[in-house]
Amino acid sequence: MHIMEMIRSHPVMPQFELDDMRIFLRIAAECGQTCVSCADACLAEKTRDQLVRCISINLDCADISLVTQRIVMRQGAPDIKLIQSQVQTFAMACRSCREECARHAAMHEHCRICAEVCARCEEACARLLRFFPATVAQDSR
Amino acid sequence: MHIMEMIRSHPVMPQFELDDMRIFLRIAAECGQTCVSCADACLAEKTRDQLVRCISINLDCADISLVTQRIVMRQGAPDIKLIQSQVQTFAMACRSCREECARHAAMHEHCRICAEVCARCEEACARLLRFFPATVAQDSR
Amino acid sequence: MHIMEMIRSHPVMPQFELDDMRIFLRIAAECGQTCVSCADACLAEKTRDQLVRCISINLDCADISLVTQRIVMRQGAPDIKLIQSQVQTFAMACRSCREECARHAAMHEHCRICAEVCARCEEACARLLRFFPATVAQDSR
Amino acid sequence: MHIMEMIRSHPVMPQFELDDMRIFLRIAAECGQTCVSCADACLAEKTRDQLVRCISINLDCADISLVTQRIVMRQGAPDIKLIQSQVQTFAMACRSCREECARHAAMHEHCRICAEVCARCEEACARLLRFFPATVAQDSR
Repeated sequence: MHIMEMIRSHPVMPQFELDDMRIFLRIAAECGQTCVSCADACLAEKTRDQLVRCISINLDCADISLVTQRIVMRQGAPDIKLIQSQVQTFAMACRSCREECARHAAMHEHCRICAEVCARCEEACARLLRFFPATVAQDSR
Repeated sequence: MHIMEMIRSHPVMPQFELDDMRIFLRIAAECGQTCVSCADACLAEKTRDQLVRCISINLDCADISLVTQRIVMRQGAPDIKLIQSQVQTFAMACRSCREECARHAAMHEHCRICAEVCARCEEACARLLRFFPATVAQDSR
Repeated sequence: MHIMEMIRSHPVMPQFELDDMRIFLRIAAECGQTCVSCADACLAEKTRDQLVRCISINLDCADISLVTQRIVMRQGAPDIKLIQSQVQTFAMACRSCREECARHAAMHEHCRICAEVCARCEEACARLLRFFPATVAQDSR
Repeated sequence: MHIMEMIRSHPVMPQFELDDMRIFLRIAAECGQTCVSCADACLAEKTRDQLVRCISINLDCADISLVTQRIVMRQGAPDIKLIQSQVQTFAMACRSCREECARHAAMHEHCRICAEVCARCEEACARLLRFFPATVAQDSR
């Protein structure tokens, strides 16, 4: 995978352990593709009436995966709190998507695989989140 | 603007006040475009050495704007906590981008405008966030 | 709309007439939002079995809208042929989405509006495409 | 890589050879990440004045990579001409990005790697394009 060579040749070192970053970027890319594919497969199933929420959270998770990868990779002038908040949001998306896909895993192989990839991506997010200084309490208003 | 007619013709009503949603979707779209344009304009300035962080946060804010619009618009099977976390993250991105652009506002008109749009987008996020039930404490690990 | 002030304050002038660019950027942003919303509304309809292709092309058109806006807005170091090819692809997406949505316009108001917005976006693409030097024959292999 | 299991478990078979699709999806994801990282690394270099066009085409190529992956993966109700046009546009983006990065390859390792990844992605696009029925002549007006 070339992405590690890219990160090593960047003039600014990342704020994460290289190994955690490598795992995150590999799984997050896979998660983004898997969610796009799972949404499309669910839509093509005859049982799609039961898969509406699954399609919706797959689309959310795919979009959030993309932006989170980008923000983690932009290591030149990082905004630490913003990265933390976006990675936390991605972890939430992975968890929601994993839970919903798991409900259909016995019926649809694509949901079973997607649940598995989301579970691993949630762990990869958790590994990144260890590098942040402290808990962030976000105010909802 | 057609987006309000779209939201009204959706079989599921949104979880937000229509007027707050209208303002949010209009400003967030503008914010996304403005940040892409500001990053590109900064990159074209001779003084780009002083604008590295500005370009970076503009790119982050543009990407986060996009995904947040999408997640807010997907009102059919919403994941409330996920929407809340993503809108909070977007509010943080708008604030960071507004603060950075404001530092260059006297020198570059595009930064002045971008700071203004980000400020309004931050307010539009705050209006949406009033609809969520309670403060979310996000654990960083 | 601030985007025109942004484009005017950019150190490099765009390769398009400002008025065509203004119309394109306004409609393309609206088209992107409308397609995301139409896909989500179609998915929420009880008649979703007839809307599978509509949801799919809506998602394609939304994604293509986004990237095309960005490439058109990056006016500092433009790659003319690439912009042309991406705008042509977007015009194709708008046409496909308009045709599919029009088939459901009598049944679903969101499809009727989406067809209308895509039609206007197709025209806005055509206006931009007039500025390119000549026909591009793209080889498929 | 799970994406092939996903594609095999999809109720509709793709219009491409599975092996070509596998290669494309792997390289395109890598290309998207590499271009985001190369843009950010170039921006962090002291010699950024020579890298303005490189940053710009990297950002274009990253965005086009994303949307092209998605459109290729949506195999349930494909719009063949649209897929073809988007893959052709992506091949153009890879070529432009490869050429520009190659100019800086001796100076910057990240540009050397990015040029290499773009070259392989261009080939992966070409493999997909063999599956389309015929040359498409696109009219520029």
